[in-house]
Amino acid sequence: MDKMKELIKQNGSYLGGGILKVDSFINHQVDPFFMRDCGEEFARLFNHVKPTRILTAETSGVAPALMTGLALDIPVVYARKSKPVTMPDQVYLTIAPSHTKGVSVELIVSPEYLQNGERVLIIDDFLASGATIKGLVRLIQAAGATLVGIGALIEKDFEGGRELLEPLGVPIESLACITKLDENGIILKDA
Amino acid sequence: MDKMKELIKQNGSYLGGGILKVDSFINHQVDPFFMRDCGEEFARLFNHVKPTRILTAETSGVAPALMTGLALDIPVVYARKSKPVTMPDQVYLTIAPSHTKGVSVELIVSPEYLQNGERVLIIDDFLASGATIKGLVRLIQAAGATLVGIGALIEKDFEGGRELLEPLGVPIESLACITKLDENGIILKDA
Repeated sequence: MDKMKELIKQNGSYLGGGILKVDSFINHQVDPFFMRDCGEEFARLFNHVKPTRILTAETSGVAPALMTGLALDIPVVYARKSKPVTMPDQVYLTIAPSHTKGVSVELIVSPEYLQNGERVLIIDDFLASGATIKGLVRLIQAAGATLVGIGALIEKDFEGGRELLEPLGVPIESLACITKLDENGIILKDA
Repeated sequence: MDKMKELIKQNGSYLGGGILKVDSFINHQVDPFFMRDCGEEFARLFNHVKPTRILTAETSGVAPALMTGLALDIPVVYARKSKPVTMPDQVYLTIAPSHTKGVSVELIVSPEYLQNGERVLIIDDFLASGATIKGLVRLIQAAGATLVGIGALIEKDFEGGRELLEPLGVPIESLACITKLDENGIILKDA
């Protein structure tokens, strides 16, 4: 997706430690029209796997997941990282390491909204090590639902996430793929 | 907004302690089409105050804020509750008590995305005690920006938030207003 690549080149910045800052258009400030375009692109990429539900993780996954849900006309569920009092006592919970936060986080979904028989598309902001997405996959498996695809706004292909997730046998798509990220700059695939 | 009132009556449930559970359509699972309708309603209600930016708090504010930003064609900024490594060291930070979490939370915005001269519309999921929204107002004031309006999907008018915020002198709008919430049921204004 050309616009994503342009935004990364113009506004992304490398902070060291493998961290790409995209706060100006994904993680803190969001351009709703651009995010709608991303959702429509994911819908185009995943329509053929017939998802019935989107699963993401709070917080930065919510915007792309919501816009993908809008384009596909299916509900969106976001895994919580701490259990609100409104959740039932019995939940699906898994632990995933968070790269940008430097700690492990819980990912929690209520069995009310992730059920046996659903065809679930995972949408998230980043595909890096794949740890968060793998956590979401475990929640889907625990619920007896079927994973049908994985989409990320930005992939860092040198962190091994795709290799971790490929054995799941579902399509994995990213809107921009970074092949190299260091003090010399950001190198994008096919850009 | 009739659809919001219907959803609250059909799917909202009272959990005790003043807590309304709306996880099936706002706080955990989201219907993107309904949320887009909410955003369009907020755009209609606030277009006249000419906002240039929307501010919300993660996580449940993101969906309504994003859809309002889409309808008004302005960027959305979501205050973070913990500082990611991608944020600069110098930030706007305030503390607000969280009703549903039972603790105080930090609300953090980078000065990069909230600046002097902006006309800021606050959009959040709930207007209850007003504590979170008052925290967002403090961030706007710290940035030297101008608050132009406050919108919430659901207002609990018995918790005093509107009284707390009215002295700010900006329009305050909610899409459904709960006047009474107890084991006997949920009473909505004008429903």
